[in-house]
Amino acid sequence: MAIASHAAVSSPLFSSPRLHRQLSCNDDARRVPTLKASPLLRNPNVPFLVLRHCRRGVGISCSATASESGGNQQKVKIRRSADENIREEAHRRDEASGSHGFSACYVPFNASADSTETYSLDDVVYRSRSGGLLDVRHDFAALKRFPGSYWRDLFDSRVGRTTWPYGSGVWSKKEFVLPEIDPDHIVSLFEGNSNLFWAERLGRDHLGGMPDLWVKHCGISHTGSFKDLGMTVLVSQVNRLRRAPLNRPIAGVGCASTGDTSAALSAYCAAARIPSIVFLPADRISLAQLVQPIANGATVLSIDTDFDGCMRLIREVTAELPIYLANSLNSLRLEGQKTAAIEILQQFDWEVPDWVIVPGGNLGNIYAFYKGFEMCRELGLVDRVPRLVCAQAANANPLYLHYKSGWSDFKPIVAADTFASAIQIGDPVSIDRAVFALQATNGIVEEATEEELMDAMSLADRTGMFACPHTGVALAALFKLREKGVIETKDRTIVVSTAHGLKFAQSKVDYHSKEISDMACRFSNPPVNVKANFGSVMDVLKEKLNVKVGL
Amino acid sequence: MAIASHAAVSSPLFSSPRLHRQLSCNDDARRVPTLKASPLLRNPNVPFLVLRHCRRGVGISCSATASESGGNQQKVKIRRSADENIREEAHRRDEASGSHGFSACYVPFNASADSTETYSLDDVVYRSRSGGLLDVRHDFAALKRFPGSYWRDLFDSRVGRTTWPYGSGVWSKKEFVLPEIDPDHIVSLFEGNSNLFWAERLGRDHLGGMPDLWVKHCGISHTGSFKDLGMTVLVSQVNRLRRAPLNRPIAGVGCASTGDTSAALSAYCAAARIPSIVFLPADRISLAQLVQPIANGATVLSIDTDFDGCMRLIREVTAELPIYLANSLNSLRLEGQKTAAIEILQQFDWEVPDWVIVPGGNLGNIYAFYKGFEMCRELGLVDRVPRLVCAQAANANPLYLHYKSGWSDFKPIVAADTFASAIQIGDPVSIDRAVFALQATNGIVEEATEEELMDAMSLADRTGMFACPHTGVALAALFKLREKGVIETKDRTIVVSTAHGLKFAQSKVDYHSKEISDMACRFSNPPVNVKANFGSVMDVLKEKLNVKVGL
Repeated sequence: MAIASHAAVSSPLFSSPRLHRQLSCNDDARRVPTLKASPLLRNPNVPFLVLRHCRRGVGISCSATASESGGNQQKVKIRRSADENIREEAHRRDEASGSHGFSACYVPFNASADSTETYSLDDVVYRSRSGGLLDVRHDFAALKRFPGSYWRDLFDSRVGRTTWPYGSGVWSKKEFVLPEIDPDHIVSLFEGNSNLFWAERLGRDHLGGMPDLWVKHCGISHTGSFKDLGMTVLVSQVNRLRRAPLNRPIAGVGCASTGDTSAALSAYCAAARIPSIVFLPADRISLAQLVQPIANGATVLSIDTDFDGCMRLIREVTAELPIYLANSLNSLRLEGQKTAAIEILQQFDWEVPDWVIVPGGNLGNIYAFYKGFEMCRELGLVDRVPRLVCAQAANANPLYLHYKSGWSDFKPIVAADTFASAIQIGDPVSIDRAVFALQATNGIVEEATEEELMDAMSLADRTGMFACPHTGVALAALFKLREKGVIETKDRTIVVSTAHGLKFAQSKVDYHSKEISDMACRFSNPPVNVKANFGSVMDVLKEKLNVKVGL
Repeated sequence: MAIASHAAVSSPLFSSPRLHRQLSCNDDARRVPTLKASPLLRNPNVPFLVLRHCRRGVGISCSATASESGGNQQKVKIRRSADENIREEAHRRDEASGSHGFSACYVPFNASADSTETYSLDDVVYRSRSGGLLDVRHDFAALKRFPGSYWRDLFDSRVGRTTWPYGSGVWSKKEFVLPEIDPDHIVSLFEGNSNLFWAERLGRDHLGGMPDLWVKHCGISHTGSFKDLGMTVLVSQVNRLRRAPLNRPIAGVGCASTGDTSAALSAYCAAARIPSIVFLPADRISLAQLVQPIANGATVLSIDTDFDGCMRLIREVTAELPIYLANSLNSLRLEGQKTAAIEILQQFDWEVPDWVIVPGGNLGNIYAFYKGFEMCRELGLVDRVPRLVCAQAANANPLYLHYKSGWSDFKPIVAADTFASAIQIGDPVSIDRAVFALQATNGIVEEATEEELMDAMSLADRTGMFACPHTGVALAALFKLREKGVIETKDRTIVVSTAHGLKFAQSKVDYHSKEISDMACRFSNPPVNVKANFGSVMDVLKEKLNVKVGL
């Protein structure tokens, strides 16, 4: 199967002069001249002035602001002309400042030191020659020409604006993501910049007075899950391939997914007018589950088979038709997902948390978080990385079992049903990535039973959240690690929430109706039926509120 | 009814020495000494230095940054001690800088120049003495001691951090919202800072090449609707009243709402551990519709009556029990909602858009947008306000009829069913506020039939959004005003999206199933049923993608 995936690389449909070209992403000849051409970036010692220039039209600088502020007078703004859109403005600005000489390429994941296998990001390649995972490698030598303070200030300067493409939480870190893409090819819905929620009451009342507990709400997003972060990168790269000068004949992007992936893929393709194709097993999925790709205009094939049958068919089809496969082993998506880690650091003014807990299924995301944190450490934005915890449902816990065995012997399992349906995976694609991330961060794996995850989710909801079951898995892991004393009261701890609870409302309905077998549903809160008269209502309320009338 | 509401003010349950106290919010004696006490704010001529001090711990200033940046070295960060949480840190910082002397109070909406009727924001008062609407009036004389550039820079400096409470898009404008509240009393879920989405493809492909069309996604939020913005203000004020030194005996906050209001109220009350009470008609609401207040631990009373019966009962109950009424005429909520307008300006680097289109039902929100824009104009942050458009469903269009009559004679109507269920209101509470806002901005009212609003929503979805039906109403109004040539190609136009499409997925299921009577559903996109073999799948895809194999 792995070989079949790799075989797609040499499909005649994707052939191009750049395909399989061996290139080094440390190619100094490409980098240095362009750096010299950019006066704004020439002097790494004045990052503050540089970042002020990045703000559209306003032209704030220290001195300018000081001299302007002596009254109620308006700043003079240079508004772009009315017939120029923000892409064109970005292109013009980019032309003026020149390319910055940063680059990235594909390499085999965890390649040996003497490996020379690399691919251009413009190659359509899903696996390494040996059938292993790929990784996007950035040219750290080029990035290191600027101090950590430069990157911090640059990223900070881009938050909260509509400047294309930096208004996005992903593309505000463009140099760390896809440095070479033309801003005009980027497909962005201004994703990222998601809420880092202070879980004040949960920490105080239910976790022994933790003052510094936070939930990174990646699911409060355009399509309702963290998948937006990766999909903007994948679809942008596909858009680059389809457009001049590359002009690759890619007819569309396909995936076999029942959930968040197909929703994110369809939305980004819709924005870019790229056809998207979703393969699904007939009669197993309701229209309600499908409504996001349907609404976003995807070609949704309801196929008379099961999920494995869909996967097999989409692999066969993408070997024949020029359809890019948005599968879960895609390493481009991780480049977008890793920005959530950078964003957490940024939201804390570049202070490093102690723990970050991530729900794990196919296990790409835990590695993406590691990669984001580690990149910031290596480039001097911060001086350490947090310890990572991967949280799995006990019904789908192959990583947990591997961890418990002392990483001695990984065995795929058959995952059982879980409310955390997006991580119901027994043979995770990114197992090697996850083990690497956990070993590098002195990490931990925890698991949560169905009752534990649903109780944790529901308790979090009682404190003002509206968590999804996967977030419940991560929260349950937090409870266990607090009980064991591994995570201490004063540790700054982040729980990563991967989807909006609105996407998983039915599981909450089941819980609060107490309709789940073998589950006490101890935090359920059913409505109270009351007769329509003043006395009956008052009786209920007085009991519920313990109110003495006339207090 | 109006008198009954006002009577609640003098209920013995709420009596306090401050109740009904006539105070002036232009009271110089309160303002000047505290201003003098704040060295950071004493000199309005150095706003840049002031704003740098607002960032937690980093201590960036122009000179500090310049001297620090000579290499890869880390900035020295002053991390708060581990046993201090962010509220305590904010309180300490606030103590150090002193109160800033800004204030606000309730006045009758659109009061005559000689009116002396004012109330403290610490009064529990829903209507003016004559039974009319209230408005929160800020002390503009105090705010005007600082130039517009000061406010712009201050608000900009607070974006994207976790600094309590300024990480919130609402509370980053605290001085314009509830200036006198102690940060420690604020109940915030870091709301606001919502996505201002560039509707590139919709504008280009479907609106005659509009390059500057934007959707303010207020519904990509904690509870999935714009109501979060107002509810953080209302619940914070209630929290202030309940806490020392005021110690009012408020037992909880109640509302009668089937939708977004009860969801937002319950979430904010849950975060603050304040009891919330939701009154609902039994047998008319499903548990799925109720799952947000249920999950957030509200006391949900399912009452054997209709919606009007619930309203009557909650009014009776709140006259007897110390329950604060979170009704739709509440003027505190509008103070939060108006920050969406300020945020739009901020996201455009304080450039003013030409048009802002807001869906209208109870009509508070259109006034809130006006108030936010006008406040920024009056205080010199910008030099003009945009033209406002209020968009109503044709099935619930009393404002549209009033506008068409030349504002001559307002008549409430009985609203018919509409997919835009949250604005299905025939007798809007804030009619006077809306007329004021529209007259002051040379505004327009448009309407949309059910087919128009569902088609507009679905077409927007095809370009990458996942809009709710209310957003569909606003988009349909945009289509009409473009057709009429009122909104021109190059006008910078904002459509306000009020809820996440995930809250209204069923309407999309109905549309794409073509299950709506008398509606062509011309943008529906049902799944394609395919047999599970390679040839069948290829046939479908080749047709859909117009792909020649071997291209």
